[in-house]
Amino acid sequence: MSKAKTAITPTRAENYAEWYQQVIVGADLAENSPVRGCMIIRPWGYALWENMQRALDDMIKATGHQNAYFPLFIPLSFLQKEAAHVEGFAKECAVVTHHRLEAGPDGKLVPSGELEEPLIVRPTSETIIGDAFARWVQSYRDLPLLINQWANIVRWEMRTRLFLRTTEFLWQEGHTAHATREEAVAETMRMLDVYATFAEDWMAVPVIKGEKTEGERFPGADSTFTIEAMMQDRKALQAGTSHFLGQNFARASNIQFLDRNGGHQHAWTTSWGVTTRLIGALLMTHSDDDGFVLPSKLAPQHVVIVPIFRSDDEKPRVLDYCRKLAAELRAQRYADAPVRVLVDEREERGGEKVWSWVRKGVPLRLEIGPRDIDKDSVFAARRDRAPKDKQSVARGEFVATVGATLQSIQEGLFARAKAYREEHTRKIDSKDEFYAFFRSEREEEGKPTPIHGGFALAHFGGDVALEQKIKDELGVTVRCIPLEEGEPGLCPFTGKRSARRVVWAKAY
Amino acid sequence: MSKAKTAITPTRAENYAEWYQQVIVGADLAENSPVRGCMIIRPWGYALWENMQRALDDMIKATGHQNAYFPLFIPLSFLQKEAAHVEGFAKECAVVTHHRLEAGPDGKLVPSGELEEPLIVRPTSETIIGDAFARWVQSYRDLPLLINQWANIVRWEMRTRLFLRTTEFLWQEGHTAHATREEAVAETMRMLDVYATFAEDWMAVPVIKGEKTEGERFPGADSTFTIEAMMQDRKALQAGTSHFLGQNFARASNIQFLDRNGGHQHAWTTSWGVTTRLIGALLMTHSDDDGFVLPSKLAPQHVVIVPIFRSDDEKPRVLDYCRKLAAELRAQRYADAPVRVLVDEREERGGEKVWSWVRKGVPLRLEIGPRDIDKDSVFAARRDRAPKDKQSVARGEFVATVGATLQSIQEGLFARAKAYREEHTRKIDSKDEFYAFFRSEREEEGKPTPIHGGFALAHFGGDVALEQKIKDELGVTVRCIPLEEGEPGLCPFTGKRSARRVVWAKAY
Repeated sequence: MSKAKTAITPTRAENYAEWYQQVIVGADLAENSPVRGCMIIRPWGYALWENMQRALDDMIKATGHQNAYFPLFIPLSFLQKEAAHVEGFAKECAVVTHHRLEAGPDGKLVPSGELEEPLIVRPTSETIIGDAFARWVQSYRDLPLLINQWANIVRWEMRTRLFLRTTEFLWQEGHTAHATREEAVAETMRMLDVYATFAEDWMAVPVIKGEKTEGERFPGADSTFTIEAMMQDRKALQAGTSHFLGQNFARASNIQFLDRNGGHQHAWTTSWGVTTRLIGALLMTHSDDDGFVLPSKLAPQHVVIVPIFRSDDEKPRVLDYCRKLAAELRAQRYADAPVRVLVDEREERGGEKVWSWVRKGVPLRLEIGPRDIDKDSVFAARRDRAPKDKQSVARGEFVATVGATLQSIQEGLFARAKAYREEHTRKIDSKDEFYAFFRSEREEEGKPTPIHGGFALAHFGGDVALEQKIKDELGVTVRCIPLEEGEPGLCPFTGKRSARRVVWAKAY
Repeated sequence: MSKAKTAITPTRAENYAEWYQQVIVGADLAENSPVRGCMIIRPWGYALWENMQRALDDMIKATGHQNAYFPLFIPLSFLQKEAAHVEGFAKECAVVTHHRLEAGPDGKLVPSGELEEPLIVRPTSETIIGDAFARWVQSYRDLPLLINQWANIVRWEMRTRLFLRTTEFLWQEGHTAHATREEAVAETMRMLDVYATFAEDWMAVPVIKGEKTEGERFPGADSTFTIEAMMQDRKALQAGTSHFLGQNFARASNIQFLDRNGGHQHAWTTSWGVTTRLIGALLMTHSDDDGFVLPSKLAPQHVVIVPIFRSDDEKPRVLDYCRKLAAELRAQRYADAPVRVLVDEREERGGEKVWSWVRKGVPLRLEIGPRDIDKDSVFAARRDRAPKDKQSVARGEFVATVGATLQSIQEGLFARAKAYREEHTRKIDSKDEFYAFFRSEREEEGKPTPIHGGFALAHFGGDVALEQKIKDELGVTVRCIPLEEGEPGLCPFTGKRSARRVVWAKAY
């Protein structure tokens, strides 16, 4: 049987990692830059990021946080204030050592003006923000202090992949200080909930909320919480983290306040962040062998209209109809905003245009030619269906239902992703079954990027060493200890009692 | 006569430079950080920046530009591609030379992992974006290419001042490529117009559009256009620039395209930017001896309501009334958006709260106590009038006219700033008068920051050397050659004919 032609080569089954790259190329989302590990986010990818930012920023503000901006550079001495923290980031720091360039002996420009203290390009901002908090917080009346920053971050990565792991990435980082442990813990969980809501309601990516084990904790945190999503290769992707920092950073930065009884106390702090990595998560959750698939709520364009005409005679009539239709659609609303519509008037063949929008993942595509106009109808395709599954719909009906159609795509993507995760999640109670779950499919595939078992829900009564051993043998780790209530049981590795099952998976 | 008490010490007349700092402190706009020359933009300052960004971003998109994101780092070899460009920035570059930290012989962490090629933290992005353009542009069909980036920028400044000159600052930088010289020139002027409209309609800052002389051109540009504003100390502030880059950067980065006739040509490029410096311009245009004054369109809050009560008994009734009033006001619209209202429920004395909002520049302040409630009225103050100029207004009337009141403040600030500029702008036709204009007031004041004459409109037929001589003697330079039609005349310094008057002033 001949293979169906797809817009992306290779397909997911043929080579998942390469498919991922090709979806990004095909959708013009991003590309590698001449600077090692730093990406260029192209307009289509950046418009998506702006929509994500806007939605999440609204949620962050609605929970009482204010945005601010702190320096890009962290003095080396600041990073060293918290021992575990500097330990965690020392190996991946971009270090500024000079503040000018000067012609060397051979006339070539070389760094000059050495700094007394090296500056680190921020890998995260706990220490520099903590220093400001120490000045801003004097009394219990100054608490809680709820700050968020949208910024670029640099962590020197040796092996990089667009969006998933880049030397420079974009993110938001929340930093808060509280008078009590309870309030800080509540904040940590509140922002985890915000992330989970954003992932599920906006990105249509189902997530599991849980706590990280000791080995996967943020350097310097008392506890780290995560939302974990299953990608289509059944690996887990950590989509956002919220850290309860205890009083560790408050002590390191001396964030103290006068309490209601006149005593001095260290504040309790949190931090939480999501990054441009979310675009990778979105891509690997919904996209198919024809390219990117966008959830309606975040799509830079909801509807793209491609005018189809065979001659210059037909052109004005077709363009005129398309522009009027676009105006009608823009008067409709979806998700509390006007529907976003583009008429693609580029000088290119209609078929090429249509496929470019398939690869870019636009939720609804319309092809409009003279015959559609004669019938006052549109030739419509949904990106969540096969590219050739197109239907002729009366114009008025299409316009009136466009919001509902977009919502049906949004919900359909979420339902499909959730069903996929459930299909590939298994409760496992024996060590043999556990090893078979993660091993069998690795061997039987023999592909460049084998698809492994999925999520294993198993009890665990082991320690960091045992987790490391399992990681060495199978390449899987505890992704999180789910927050959801679970039944107690016995650990299949140690036989010890365990309060609940944890999620095991291979991870990005 | 005893001096009237002001909320800011010193006053503008006493010490303008220190007044500027104290307005920033008093409004919680920003502060110096422990990193030399880098500022922290505090929530009130950042909320203002977000409003500026949102409005300007809409205008940039409405003129056909798309946002994208390019690497923070520029390889040294890229910066060197354009000779004048690297010459212009070499002395103020933050240079990354290492990519990790390691314990040295004495156990202290030191930079390690030296890079083969140093990376410059972007002082501007022409070269790294030009490299991408060279890949993206193949044919005339790919032009014009209209890209904008919102980003942080680093230029190592020796003497820094909050917002006006900081080592790290935030900006947007537009970069475009065109098929013809004419289109690139038109784009350069279009964006200058966008900046002028933004400055005047949103910031209420009147500006003069003009071209820079050779000495003040962007390094590598064929011509640089600017908008110049007069501050209250009568100095000029360059508020935004738009550069016609000719084919200089297209040659340096090899941006070539296949034209309609099958020939290869270099593209014509432009770049244009405004920065967080605009906040300094806004401050020095409108603020007074009681602190910051915000134009309504950009104010993070339009109306702040301060509940006034003397006892816990009165509190619930007053708060209830204030919250309902806030809801009524939020249902009103101003500048195509809901009116932004805050009820200040902090546990502080009413008077302290009121003065904090004076210093923060909120356009409308309401004080509401039991007696106002009895009359169903509000006690209202406008920030463009004296702090104690408060009026009792019927609640219904205040609510119904709030949009009009905000617009009257917006327009009043602009009119006042324009009148001030006109008052301190003089046409000068003799060298003696020119020297007297800039010298007399410097000497007669004898203040820490003397207030100089203002803008001198004089003909100029000199060269770079003469401009430098006048700068050395008087501290003034040609701020711009205005675009507006002017009458020809004779240069008072050289006696040569000149096509139009230029604007001379001391500058930030």
